[in-house]
Amino acid sequence: MKKVSIVGGSGYTGGELVRLLLHHSEVFIHQVSSRGHLGEYLYQVHPNLRKQTDLKFCDPDQIEAVDILFLAMPHGKAQTEIKKYAGLASKIIDLSADFRLKNPVLYEKWYGSPHAAPEWLDKFAYGLPEINREQIQQANYVSGVGCNATAAIMSLKPLVDADLLVKDQEPIIEIKTGSSEGGVSVNPGSHHPERSGVIRTFSAFGHRHTAEVIQAYGFESVRLTMTAVDLVRGALATAHVKLKPGTAKKDVWKAYRNAVNENVFVRLVNERRGIYRVPEPKILAGSNYVDIGFAMDEDTGHLVSICAIDNLMKGASGSAVQSMNLMMGWDEMTGLSFPGLHPV
Amino acid sequence: MKKVSIVGGSGYTGGELVRLLLHHSEVFIHQVSSRGHLGEYLYQVHPNLRKQTDLKFCDPDQIEAVDILFLAMPHGKAQTEIKKYAGLASKIIDLSADFRLKNPVLYEKWYGSPHAAPEWLDKFAYGLPEINREQIQQANYVSGVGCNATAAIMSLKPLVDADLLVKDQEPIIEIKTGSSEGGVSVNPGSHHPERSGVIRTFSAFGHRHTAEVIQAYGFESVRLTMTAVDLVRGALATAHVKLKPGTAKKDVWKAYRNAVNENVFVRLVNERRGIYRVPEPKILAGSNYVDIGFAMDEDTGHLVSICAIDNLMKGASGSAVQSMNLMMGWDEMTGLSFPGLHPV
Amino acid sequence: MKKVSIVGGSGYTGGELVRLLLHHSEVFIHQVSSRGHLGEYLYQVHPNLRKQTDLKFCDPDQIEAVDILFLAMPHGKAQTEIKKYAGLASKIIDLSADFRLKNPVLYEKWYGSPHAAPEWLDKFAYGLPEINREQIQQANYVSGVGCNATAAIMSLKPLVDADLLVKDQEPIIEIKTGSSEGGVSVNPGSHHPERSGVIRTFSAFGHRHTAEVIQAYGFESVRLTMTAVDLVRGALATAHVKLKPGTAKKDVWKAYRNAVNENVFVRLVNERRGIYRVPEPKILAGSNYVDIGFAMDEDTGHLVSICAIDNLMKGASGSAVQSMNLMMGWDEMTGLSFPGLHPV
Amino acid sequence: MKKVSIVGGSGYTGGELVRLLLHHSEVFIHQVSSRGHLGEYLYQVHPNLRKQTDLKFCDPDQIEAVDILFLAMPHGKAQTEIKKYAGLASKIIDLSADFRLKNPVLYEKWYGSPHAAPEWLDKFAYGLPEINREQIQQANYVSGVGCNATAAIMSLKPLVDADLLVKDQEPIIEIKTGSSEGGVSVNPGSHHPERSGVIRTFSAFGHRHTAEVIQAYGFESVRLTMTAVDLVRGALATAHVKLKPGTAKKDVWKAYRNAVNENVFVRLVNERRGIYRVPEPKILAGSNYVDIGFAMDEDTGHLVSICAIDNLMKGASGSAVQSMNLMMGWDEMTGLSFPGLHPV
Repeated sequence: MKKVSIVGGSGYTGGELVRLLLHHSEVFIHQVSSRGHLGEYLYQVHPNLRKQTDLKFCDPDQIEAVDILFLAMPHGKAQTEIKKYAGLASKIIDLSADFRLKNPVLYEKWYGSPHAAPEWLDKFAYGLPEINREQIQQANYVSGVGCNATAAIMSLKPLVDADLLVKDQEPIIEIKTGSSEGGVSVNPGSHHPERSGVIRTFSAFGHRHTAEVIQAYGFESVRLTMTAVDLVRGALATAHVKLKPGTAKKDVWKAYRNAVNENVFVRLVNERRGIYRVPEPKILAGSNYVDIGFAMDEDTGHLVSICAIDNLMKGASGSAVQSMNLMMGWDEMTGLSFPGLHPV
Repeated sequence: MKKVSIVGGSGYTGGELVRLLLHHSEVFIHQVSSRGHLGEYLYQVHPNLRKQTDLKFCDPDQIEAVDILFLAMPHGKAQTEIKKYAGLASKIIDLSADFRLKNPVLYEKWYGSPHAAPEWLDKFAYGLPEINREQIQQANYVSGVGCNATAAIMSLKPLVDADLLVKDQEPIIEIKTGSSEGGVSVNPGSHHPERSGVIRTFSAFGHRHTAEVIQAYGFESVRLTMTAVDLVRGALATAHVKLKPGTAKKDVWKAYRNAVNENVFVRLVNERRGIYRVPEPKILAGSNYVDIGFAMDEDTGHLVSICAIDNLMKGASGSAVQSMNLMMGWDEMTGLSFPGLHPV
Repeated sequence: MKKVSIVGGSGYTGGELVRLLLHHSEVFIHQVSSRGHLGEYLYQVHPNLRKQTDLKFCDPDQIEAVDILFLAMPHGKAQTEIKKYAGLASKIIDLSADFRLKNPVLYEKWYGSPHAAPEWLDKFAYGLPEINREQIQQANYVSGVGCNATAAIMSLKPLVDADLLVKDQEPIIEIKTGSSEGGVSVNPGSHHPERSGVIRTFSAFGHRHTAEVIQAYGFESVRLTMTAVDLVRGALATAHVKLKPGTAKKDVWKAYRNAVNENVFVRLVNERRGIYRVPEPKILAGSNYVDIGFAMDEDTGHLVSICAIDNLMKGASGSAVQSMNLMMGWDEMTGLSFPGLHPV
Repeated sequence: MKKVSIVGGSGYTGGELVRLLLHHSEVFIHQVSSRGHLGEYLYQVHPNLRKQTDLKFCDPDQIEAVDILFLAMPHGKAQTEIKKYAGLASKIIDLSADFRLKNPVLYEKWYGSPHAAPEWLDKFAYGLPEINREQIQQANYVSGVGCNATAAIMSLKPLVDADLLVKDQEPIIEIKTGSSEGGVSVNPGSHHPERSGVIRTFSAFGHRHTAEVIQAYGFESVRLTMTAVDLVRGALATAHVKLKPGTAKKDVWKAYRNAVNENVFVRLVNERRGIYRVPEPKILAGSNYVDIGFAMDEDTGHLVSICAIDNLMKGASGSAVQSMNLMMGWDEMTGLSFPGLHPV
């Protein structure tokens, strides 16, 4: 059993990490820190952990050396303290946005300030196994993923891998998300009377996760439009793209099937009957699956690609645990077997 | 046209008042104050008022003399400033809890500190027309109502009026409420990810609105249990009471029908078919109706009385406008004709 | 007071029509028919109408001559019976899809069967006042509007009117909708456990309302993608379009302001602060307003236009009543003054 | 590995059973039957099972002999076919209401028709381990539990076990439930526009699950009042009871702690701070825990006991699997370790 700790465990991704690691057969949790909840039992913040663990939140300054260290602090913190934490563990997985982008110029453009540790950017592998498995397997340092970036990237992956997209038309990707994506901090817009029942397009373009999609596939530009809906967990990406002339439907099917065959957590959903014919985040809460599907207009080559995830799992903590499994040479699915509920 | 102003118009009850008064045929709004939103257009805080009014929030210290003044400040404020406001208007309707209870001892017991203007308590009529119409008609000062108190009182009213209840068994009243009851201020428990999908019994007993129910009917005690559910507007009271021996079902029917006949906003809902067989707040959003219904166990005299309201309307601003109509001798329904939506 | 009747009044649009007409100062309702609910009180089907009217559903075969007749039957019925109804009223407003498209070829293409009364298509004016006011004013027959078509058309209207769009790139319009759009009939996918919490892209393209958008603006093609979300009332269109080179932001502002100035029910929502910065259907339930807004990328000419409506009001019954007002020479807002609720 | 099959696997409890058994370390699923979905893959009905199993629904008439047989058919079916199924497996767990009540007279009173196999009633142990562990351990036949009965029974258990309740006052138990309790069949009241946002007291008293509570504790009568709220999974019981004179708060604490100590799935939730101070079904989706808590009025001996469960887990399939574990001598928690999600 390997020893793991989590720095910053009182947020939603931190809580999800604890839940996953408590049931992981290869590790045990040594410490979980939280400055704001110092001394409290974990279950007082994460009520689903009651009777699961007697751990209390410790001071982040008292984090000890372990085999694997997860950093789940607010964006901007990890880059200023990475050296310290690198002294405590040979394997680090950082869930913040700090080490996702390889190019410090790109980082500054999208995050508005220079990176505090640009020399570390190259040491981190981007933590989405479905597009970066080999690098992660050999990495000591792995970044987190943006939840919307994950949904967007995975909606395009089959088509990019099979080289089916025209180059000159930027993908337009509409993402609908639940409220947990905004994190644990309260704000006027997250007040239940104001957030309930919304269809709120809060970012028409310019969302920071766009940078990860661009980096993943080398597009010149991609449009991410973010709309908040009444749901806690889940994100759906609906991508509008143009196929190369002559692309046949069977080429597209093959591309999607390849993505499924090469990735244990990818499923193709494209049914002609029943209620769940397309990918939907509703049934993915708590699951690490990423469901993909598509509709193609053969006359015009217009394709709508759909991708559903649980933003706290595949879009955050699930991918982080999956990355850990790869880094450590364990079965990729270890600790990630929960399939989700129906109905829910 | 009478001139009205609202002190404290940036909260949910203040906004609802503005909406109602803008469409009221007998009044026009002169000023609406808000210290926190000073200088902002009303529609920037109450987005449903866009294109309805060009009013901006003024400083509460600049409120001028008017015919009718509504006070919609946080609890505890009106009692310290009532003299000042009485100098500005001969008719005042205060929506806070400050002047609901007649007995300063009762006030201190339930609100935890002595009343700042006990000599004013008797000058205020309790602002629930369905139990206090005549007093309101002759009053210059009318209090607001607690939303849960309104639901509880109205669930018992037919039975109390007809003297059908045994004295020695306290009513147990379960109230389920939406999130707007908590007001406009954000707190960790109102954060959408935490508040969505809840069934949260946040007050087993001891809720302050209990005092209003006791005052209304002279019960020795009443149990109000509050459970928050996933809804923005609406409250449902389910009251469990014991009927006097010998009470027949037709006596109960008669009691409920009387309540309906004597009150334009009371409706009896007791259907044998269809979807909406009992009172439900779902269809009352924006409406001033109070729907009542019951189920009776003839063998035992156990009766379950059900009452549904929109907490911001009948449970707050709607009753306040209705009270104004009575004070001014206008038709009781003026400005309150919106029947609610279906489906919604 | 003019006499109106409604054929097919048990569905959601029929119920909404009754609600609106009961409070309309120029008309009174003579009859409302429903074969399935024959003899029932209207309020047994539309629970918000309790204590509003004593009308019962009559047999559609017993509809009598009136001044204005609304047809709110399932799609396909009105076209087979239009002659009969034209004998009963000189003014007819049909809310179904039967007379929206002028071209019978287009009708057959999108609805899958030949039109039963193609000679009537030209007699009907398309019932969206914001793009067809003058025709409606002079018409005896007015069609309904598709709710998604309305949201899509209104998202494009300012840009089309000002001729700001490039011709060679088809608009991509993502529409998110509530469940009431599906009508009153139950199906496995509308079962609450399956429909609650969804983000379900049920139509990637090919939705029938597309035809109305094409007809309105003469585009060669438009992409409408439909996603169901957890909400009862409301639709949001997010349109992605390309502006002509050289279009400045002030040109766009002017275009949107023109749409507002020329249409009493159109509002521009584009705030820099507060919670409601963009159009949202949440605050439009029960209202006839259509809120529009936009975000523009000046570097590339990419524009995201956002439009929010209540699908049962502006997207159906509200526009129908507004059309009646225009046909009859009444104030356009008569009976449509409800501004919507906040919070809700 | 033991061989298990499920008769009637297309409903919500059947689907939940499959999910649990697929991850159970001691069993494998041999067959799952469904007449209505014959030949379909399980994941076409239970979309969360995609990529989990290749099983297809078989004909119920082709169910073969196995070690353990689960019956998850509609109420009334198992009692007519129990002999047949007893020939196929030595261990049977029936999730319907057919074998919950021991007394055929009680069965007929609450279910309206005579029991078809009264001689089998005594052979079945009531399948709620928390009140019947020893019998279940020795049983070959175990019944299911009513979800509302489970919540009600567990809200009273600590007090009954410690003999703290007065005899002459009937418990009043208010239960709020999600929509999955109604099962997989669609009806007008489960249509999303009608079921969304409800607070609907659909049964004031007389709910069939009352019989199980009476049987469990020998009360003369108990009041169960059922209110549907906007949630898919979950039930909360709020029980109002009277304590024997002289009962101290520490006696009550001790009673609740005993219930926790003796039952691995029972948790006591009674916090002074944080958001989740009382039991809430929100965080229990997918979990087999039953959370209990209380508030006591020491002056009067009035106690409010609160119990939260996932109706499809502890209230149905979870208790069934737990019962299987006990019958087979396995660890009680096998296959039931999922702790639930937060937030969700």
